[in-house]
Amino acid sequence: MRRTITGYSNPTVKYLRSLRDKKHRKREGRFLAEGLRLLTDARESGKLPETLVMAEARESHPLLSELEAAVEQAGGEIIETSPDILAKITGKDNPQAIAGIFTEFDTGLDQIDRNSAKIWLVAQALRDPGNLGTMLRTGDAVGAGGLILIDDCADPFSVEAVRASMGAIFTQCVAQARWEEFEPWLRAGAGQLVAASLREAQPYRAAPYQAPCFVMVGNESRGLPENYEMACDLRVTMPMRGRADSLNAAVAGAVLAYEVLETLDPA
Amino acid sequence: MRRTITGYSNPTVKYLRSLRDKKHRKREGRFLAEGLRLLTDARESGKLPETLVMAEARESHPLLSELEAAVEQAGGEIIETSPDILAKITGKDNPQAIAGIFTEFDTGLDQIDRNSAKIWLVAQALRDPGNLGTMLRTGDAVGAGGLILIDDCADPFSVEAVRASMGAIFTQCVAQARWEEFEPWLRAGAGQLVAASLREAQPYRAAPYQAPCFVMVGNESRGLPENYEMACDLRVTMPMRGRADSLNAAVAGAVLAYEVLETLDPA
Repeated sequence: MRRTITGYSNPTVKYLRSLRDKKHRKREGRFLAEGLRLLTDARESGKLPETLVMAEARESHPLLSELEAAVEQAGGEIIETSPDILAKITGKDNPQAIAGIFTEFDTGLDQIDRNSAKIWLVAQALRDPGNLGTMLRTGDAVGAGGLILIDDCADPFSVEAVRASMGAIFTQCVAQARWEEFEPWLRAGAGQLVAASLREAQPYRAAPYQAPCFVMVGNESRGLPENYEMACDLRVTMPMRGRADSLNAAVAGAVLAYEVLETLDPA
Repeated sequence: MRRTITGYSNPTVKYLRSLRDKKHRKREGRFLAEGLRLLTDARESGKLPETLVMAEARESHPLLSELEAAVEQAGGEIIETSPDILAKITGKDNPQAIAGIFTEFDTGLDQIDRNSAKIWLVAQALRDPGNLGTMLRTGDAVGAGGLILIDDCADPFSVEAVRASMGAIFTQCVAQARWEEFEPWLRAGAGQLVAASLREAQPYRAAPYQAPCFVMVGNESRGLPENYEMACDLRVTMPMRGRADSLNAAVAGAVLAYEVLETLDPA
């Protein structure tokens, strides 16, 4: 189905803009992904937007044609509008912009089949959506199964997290849980919980990692609570040769995840 | 010297706000760093703000007292103002906020003593100030000498980059150059230029890294220009087990830098 929107005050414009806000995303169970590259990543991962929004006057592109055809065939909606209105929706001054509305995925822990991958990433109270998206992207690169968000993290469906994930939001499992749910779930099956730590830690290089390995990083300012660290099966430490005693959370997770990959699944 | 500012329209308030803007930073040769932790990092690295701005009513803190004393002893200025005006300056709703004005450092290539460190990080056309600050932080962690910015990068003195560096802006050398300056400078002395690449690359793990090793990452969207990659002494590739063929720029630089550290300067 195709339709054209010509007025700023159209309720659909308001609806689309509202999805930039977490409260509205949760209420609607929908999120926005922007840009042809991201939407193509989604399509290639088998995820189609229920609604596609784009500018009326636009350059043709084979990937865009494929995307349009796929959305129409799946019974989705295609909305064409003016570059100005599109800029208002996306908050970007780019008439080539394109956006898709997707249904939020189920993010229960029961979505996780822990034996489907050797590595899982775990983020605790990560507040920066960019860090969260970056961890999803790293997870894709190391062949992780997904990202488990513990306690109060940024929203993985925010426009910023989706963008930083570079499409990994469509390929990585995402689960959200409180620590009180996560720990019993983890202990009900195989799984080694690993964190970078300064407490009773061993060098991260060639530590005895075991699959499925859950690599956990903590909040950007506070790090992990001490009892979470002590609940880990393995605490490892990375060289810190300068003044600081920590890395950016997404960087720490990536350096550690690549080391785990080298142990569990070398090239 | 101490003084109190009570009015929003005070020219100093306008001046401080203007330092959030690159054009004004360059004209004034000054930049802002915010927060007691960052300013303490600066002090411990031997860098004091010429001006310190803080709220009149504030909780006492031993680190704040030390900072005030150091700034006064160095002949600097301390400005006290209302929480509201401070919030206007810092753009943050936090009456505990504190900000310092620093002189921008010289960022010529001639600041770099390449033999003073085994690792140097190089960023080409990196546009995200957060990525740039994160690279500074990683550089500190791996004992790098500093960060060399090639072509049109984000401003390392922006509030966002300074914040993301977690104080490393005060300990890492920062140089800025065009590629046309950097390449002859590099070739005029010892130095191995290394980049992650898909072109004629070897596995990053245990590649023949040599000190001083210059680890280069490219622009977030486009990566490195092909001729820059081909000018490298060593091109390495990291495992990509998922859909994507690249990592976040700051993450790629960190994973690579930690591998170089393991070769050149193991624990």
